[in-house]
Amino acid sequence: MVGGGQLARMTHQAAISLGVPLRVLARDPGESAAQVCADVRIGDERSLDDLRAFAKDCDVVTWDHEHVPQELIKALEEAGTACRPGSDALLHAQDKLVMRERLSSFGAPCPAFSHVPSRAPLAFLEAFAREHGWPLVLKATRGGYDGKGVWVLDALDRDTAELVNRLLDEGVDLLVEEHVAFRRELAALVARSPYGQGAAYPIVETVQRDGICHEVISPAPGLDEDTAAEAQRLALDIAEHLGVTGLLAVELFQTDSGLVVNELAMRPHNSGHWTIEGARTSQFEQHVRAVLDLPLGSTEATAPYVVMVNVLGGDDPDVYPRYVHVMAHDPGVRVHMYGKQVRPGRKIGHVTALGDDLDEVRERARHAADYLRWGPAMKERG
Amino acid sequence: MVGGGQLARMTHQAAISLGVPLRVLARDPGESAAQVCADVRIGDERSLDDLRAFAKDCDVVTWDHEHVPQELIKALEEAGTACRPGSDALLHAQDKLVMRERLSSFGAPCPAFSHVPSRAPLAFLEAFAREHGWPLVLKATRGGYDGKGVWVLDALDRDTAELVNRLLDEGVDLLVEEHVAFRRELAALVARSPYGQGAAYPIVETVQRDGICHEVISPAPGLDEDTAAEAQRLALDIAEHLGVTGLLAVELFQTDSGLVVNELAMRPHNSGHWTIEGARTSQFEQHVRAVLDLPLGSTEATAPYVVMVNVLGGDDPDVYPRYVHVMAHDPGVRVHMYGKQVRPGRKIGHVTALGDDLDEVRERARHAADYLRWGPAMKERG
Repeated sequence: MVGGGQLARMTHQAAISLGVPLRVLARDPGESAAQVCADVRIGDERSLDDLRAFAKDCDVVTWDHEHVPQELIKALEEAGTACRPGSDALLHAQDKLVMRERLSSFGAPCPAFSHVPSRAPLAFLEAFAREHGWPLVLKATRGGYDGKGVWVLDALDRDTAELVNRLLDEGVDLLVEEHVAFRRELAALVARSPYGQGAAYPIVETVQRDGICHEVISPAPGLDEDTAAEAQRLALDIAEHLGVTGLLAVELFQTDSGLVVNELAMRPHNSGHWTIEGARTSQFEQHVRAVLDLPLGSTEATAPYVVMVNVLGGDDPDVYPRYVHVMAHDPGVRVHMYGKQVRPGRKIGHVTALGDDLDEVRERARHAADYLRWGPAMKERG
Repeated sequence: MVGGGQLARMTHQAAISLGVPLRVLARDPGESAAQVCADVRIGDERSLDDLRAFAKDCDVVTWDHEHVPQELIKALEEAGTACRPGSDALLHAQDKLVMRERLSSFGAPCPAFSHVPSRAPLAFLEAFAREHGWPLVLKATRGGYDGKGVWVLDALDRDTAELVNRLLDEGVDLLVEEHVAFRRELAALVARSPYGQGAAYPIVETVQRDGICHEVISPAPGLDEDTAAEAQRLALDIAEHLGVTGLLAVELFQTDSGLVVNELAMRPHNSGHWTIEGARTSQFEQHVRAVLDLPLGSTEATAPYVVMVNVLGGDDPDVYPRYVHVMAHDPGVRVHMYGKQVRPGRKIGHVTALGDDLDEVRERARHAADYLRWGPAMKERG
């Protein structure tokens, strides 16, 4: 697995059970996965030499993130390395414009979108807004994640003009989309194997805060069966059309007129962390099974409600003493920490609670996450 | 954790979630845990120098097995290393005679037992048999596991005489016990922290084959509530009396006249592997929490029935191709492989199934384990 973040870390936990040796390419031995894996190679995923040395003797190469340049993945593939997902599929998780064009080509519901031309971009945006209304959503076609590379434009004022001109001057390729008035955000997580088997997890509701996925509720409360089935089918269709191998997470807007695709990711995804305890097969094991072309595991939920809340860094770099309260307060809450240095607002772990009563489960997960962040000061800070 | 077996391997999986760095002392880099852990020290747990070098900078030292010599653990403790369980407690899992004497001293139910004197041992055994009847169970006081170091004596014949004399000549210290006529075997798994908190898992039935734990059913089918509660209380009492920190597994005989203690282990135990999916907190996480003096996790079962079956090695050293059938046949069965070289009859992994219908769950787990061992030949071989 290329990348040494928490996704590789949790994938390693799953791979251990299957007796599958996981090698990780990390930039630094201190990275989340590098701390816990036996087979760590230090290198830069933007260097073909490093990738080649890493991939030697690997049966399959897969990705912890979308930031490996296309041309390098293609070079690996040309040399005979099995990359899953492959470059053609992964491109749709790397380039938002390519993704929009492709999804639209087979009728997957997307917001209105267009490439922003470098010539007369402001006039173009004004015309786009006349058709679709303000606000607009401006996105870098490549390189964004967790809210980075996305800007909401309220009007064509001086700030907007400065931003757009600066980005284009910096060579950032831009996409504009209509702003979708959504009721809430959902996520559909599916797996697809090279053989073509597909498996869909229950549809979840994701609650974002500051552009970061903060809380995930499985199943999405009150979601009607038809819409849930439609979301699963949509994600399976996208996986098949794009030839995805491994996991595909489809972030969705639920609107008054139906579902709209927001973003795609082709790897274990924050919206699927709940599956570690909440589904018979965790997304991490499912990804390993899918990329190795093993039969996929059951996606059945293990409880009526499962809630995952991300743990963000607070002011105190030492989270460990706060375990005592969290574990004593709630022996059933599951704590997952990523071994990351605590910085305020950084994702450093997640907690999961499950049970029959959604309000109670949600309160338990929130309490644990807030306490791990703030300690006894959570009431003032949370 | 001293020892590089599958218990350390699975403890590492649990420690990762807690963000607890686990260092492992293994004799060989190919050992089960050494294959997957980031921090592996190669050394011999019977060497004080190796143990000291290993334990340096560790907050707590714990054990994957009972084979570290007492005097070395005591030396570590005297040098200020926190050993959990400590030497005084662990002695009762290392020396069966000490265990029997201690348990009897506070009324824990044991079979009749006695040390076998090196002078006139056969006359002694004959007298013991006159009181308790044949067969007798002869045990090495130290060093046995998985049926090794245990012999059932049917009569004082020439074979018995030869065996006893040979063992004594070799310097093996011997214990004799009455043979308990049990209905079935149960196991009670509890955790105890240095703070004194205790937690008990549901009582399971264990099915042994050739002296090796083969199948575990949670909860023990048809066990009445009183006996289950008594077994849990007994294990918690033993943990407290012996000052155990970490896990304590108590192997029990269920007889017509009540429960009898068979063996003790102070570490994650084969009879608790079902907890990985079958309990809110796995025994591995529980052990980590207990030895670090963190509050203990919920032992609640996640399903009405959970069955674990050990996977033994068959004739074919390559198990991997058989995953395809096992996973396709039953997407809900959980496979845990230990990365061990396949040798016929060797424990190389386990599988877990869970659900509402015991017969079905048991059949699913058995099928997966048998297929992983024998492949399509399972019908003839299993």
